[in-house]
Amino acid sequence: MIKEQILALLEERKFKELKELLETVHPVDIAEMLEDISKKQMILIFRLLAKEEAADVFTDMNSDMREYLINTLTDSELEEVMDEMYVDDTVDVLEEMPANVVDRLLMVTDEDTRKKINALLQYPEDSAGSIMNIDYVSLRREMTVEEAILKIRQVGINKETIYTCYVTEKKRLIGVVDVKDLLTAGEARLIEEIMDENVLCAKTLDDQEEVASSIRKYGLVAMPIIDHENCLVGIVTVDDAMYVLQDETTEDISIMAGVSPNEDSYFGTSVFRHAKNRTLWLMLLMLSATVTGEILRHYEEAMSVMPVLITFIPMLMGTSGNCGSQSSTMVIRGLAVGEIEFRDFLRVIFKEIRVALVVGLLLAAVNGIRIYLMYNQDIMLAFALGVTMIAVIVMAKCIGCTLPLLAKKIGVDPAIMAAPLISTIMDTCTILMYFTIITAFFRLGG
Amino acid sequence: MIKEQILALLEERKFKELKELLETVHPVDIAEMLEDISKKQMILIFRLLAKEEAADVFTDMNSDMREYLINTLTDSELEEVMDEMYVDDTVDVLEEMPANVVDRLLMVTDEDTRKKINALLQYPEDSAGSIMNIDYVSLRREMTVEEAILKIRQVGINKETIYTCYVTEKKRLIGVVDVKDLLTAGEARLIEEIMDENVLCAKTLDDQEEVASSIRKYGLVAMPIIDHENCLVGIVTVDDAMYVLQDETTEDISIMAGVSPNEDSYFGTSVFRHAKNRTLWLMLLMLSATVTGEILRHYEEAMSVMPVLITFIPMLMGTSGNCGSQSSTMVIRGLAVGEIEFRDFLRVIFKEIRVALVVGLLLAAVNGIRIYLMYNQDIMLAFALGVTMIAVIVMAKCIGCTLPLLAKKIGVDPAIMAAPLISTIMDTCTILMYFTIITAFFRLGG
Repeated sequence: MIKEQILALLEERKFKELKELLETVHPVDIAEMLEDISKKQMILIFRLLAKEEAADVFTDMNSDMREYLINTLTDSELEEVMDEMYVDDTVDVLEEMPANVVDRLLMVTDEDTRKKINALLQYPEDSAGSIMNIDYVSLRREMTVEEAILKIRQVGINKETIYTCYVTEKKRLIGVVDVKDLLTAGEARLIEEIMDENVLCAKTLDDQEEVASSIRKYGLVAMPIIDHENCLVGIVTVDDAMYVLQDETTEDISIMAGVSPNEDSYFGTSVFRHAKNRTLWLMLLMLSATVTGEILRHYEEAMSVMPVLITFIPMLMGTSGNCGSQSSTMVIRGLAVGEIEFRDFLRVIFKEIRVALVVGLLLAAVNGIRIYLMYNQDIMLAFALGVTMIAVIVMAKCIGCTLPLLAKKIGVDPAIMAAPLISTIMDTCTILMYFTIITAFFRLGG
Repeated sequence: MIKEQILALLEERKFKELKELLETVHPVDIAEMLEDISKKQMILIFRLLAKEEAADVFTDMNSDMREYLINTLTDSELEEVMDEMYVDDTVDVLEEMPANVVDRLLMVTDEDTRKKINALLQYPEDSAGSIMNIDYVSLRREMTVEEAILKIRQVGINKETIYTCYVTEKKRLIGVVDVKDLLTAGEARLIEEIMDENVLCAKTLDDQEEVASSIRKYGLVAMPIIDHENCLVGIVTVDDAMYVLQDETTEDISIMAGVSPNEDSYFGTSVFRHAKNRTLWLMLLMLSATVTGEILRHYEEAMSVMPVLITFIPMLMGTSGNCGSQSSTMVIRGLAVGEIEFRDFLRVIFKEIRVALVVGLLLAAVNGIRIYLMYNQDIMLAFALGVTMIAVIVMAKCIGCTLPLLAKKIGVDPAIMAAPLISTIMDTCTILMYFTIITAFFRLGG
């Protein structure tokens, strides 16, 4: 609705009203809307935005739109936008741009900012340093609360978050003061009296996902980041942490579906890139599945004696694959949120075996009755299939819960051990187990 | 390490040192440690905690431990803990307790709090109302910044978050003021001059996941919640939002693995509960798989003429299942993070068909060469399998991306349309397509 209003005002060239309307719309929503309209309209609207809002909208855009804007805006327009952006956001923008665009952007930033940007660009991808914000409020222990508030008043206007202030001594982090404590403590009290010395902090080279998880775990609004000399160099804020966690989850889910993750969005990824991300696993699994095919062929004779055997194959393979991926998924998620660790190995296996027995008995009973009724009341066949079903389910649950834990232990992403790989492995194991049990039961040649 | 230190001090009955040590440990970590030690030790340590810390630790515990504590502590001890807890946390605790425990807890809370608790307990599960915090700072438009800061000083000490203050008029929400704006604006300015009137807010009955997603999308520290008369009744804070998003993701991932989600942790769920959560889907899929079995049986004759046909079944079923779940997973995640919507239907299908053609051609080529080399250079067989492979992959990707979108459209959770269901459906479709193509190619009777 807002979108239609905006486009109508643009159409009628009522720029003043449009400008006023845009001031009431959240930058995130403006960025979202700009994605859906023509490039020409986008530029027109972008130029109408107030300086600060333009910077916010620019930060929230996707990289294609940003690149287009950078190529279209004049140097002075670009400079205005860059001036209003936070350094960490600028770095995020630069990391996605081709070299010539980066040069142009760096040319319009002042030297001080350029130095900061270059420092941040040094941190490895996915490190805490690469997502941290270098604007924060630092206090000294001997300040009074009144002086601290005065300092926030003076410098705070440029800081992305001032909810937590950091107390430093020779740049070393020695305490934290919540703005709530500043406001509720007496004005004459000293910072060192009210500061909390048990500071949770992370290192610049720590994995961004770990930092984000800690922010969630401890309910922080920001986590201070220190360098190898324990000097405070920046903070990671909760809003960035939420995005990191979302991206990492998307990555996990992709891997769990046998898709190599990439950072772009679904529509932002080209067809060939999508194909490339998916083919590797498919190829590998396709070739592994030929093993199952060869084993099947090995039992050709048994199947020609008892043709009914073939009808149970999809059911057994399907059930074992599903059972295995249920277990592996539970364990993968448990590992991801920190509930399960490798030391829980035996506890997990013991639990899964018990679950498998309960589930196996239930499925075997239902399936046995079905087979008894559908296949001339052949009680022997129903029983043999029941035994196979229980054996296959116990095996599936054991393998399913073991593989992610082993992967974690050897430093491989446990998410790889999800449905696609597990069900391919289970197919082979199931066929082997099925024919071993069946040939023993009915004394068929293997 | 800290854990060993704590237990050693407890062993030596050095309670004073232990008390001091505990003050330096984060409540979240204390709660985590208490889970790992004996109940007797837990009670001892819990009683040593300072009042406020005890309340925080209690909030962070799992429900089993809480119930044990409630049954062990005296009424006056319990009262002390409850007095320090935030009302929304108390409600979270109560929602998980059996009725007799709830009664006991309500008996030790004062009437004012009891009223608030009862009001919060009315909101449906998973609604914004059920997770909101009723402690927040409200200001009036005619206050000066100085008066506002004074008000925060007076009441703020009991409020869980004061980072954002809300401006109300006859209880209606008319604006928001960030504490940053209060600190950086001149003391004499009026709240109405500095407040932002474009307030993002949610209703008490809105889904908690939507509210949490908005908090992430707009980078808020809290979202105000209004009732049906537009009166401000509470706020949802970013730390609660992060937990909601994590729980909802875990729920999605469970459903995607064919496991009915439940709110307890992996180890906190009993074996029978685990079995119950997993059996429904397994049963359903097992019975559906019998259809595939019957279809296979229908083509018994074709397989007895060309026994090699059976060897390709696991590979084809595996590949189609994996292709289908790749597509469905991408779409399910896209829907969950709000990138894909139902109106993108045609765009998604068009993209998936192109991806399928690229992937299909590649896999068909590799597979064709393998068959040509392994099966007496039978070029006809290699070609027939190649055609089947491409057809099956295109079908898998189309069905895989369509089902989650349709589920969303009719109001069913798209996560259901993940690997287990998709691969069962794909098994049936694959067998049908395989034998249709093969019997046509080699003129075999169906």
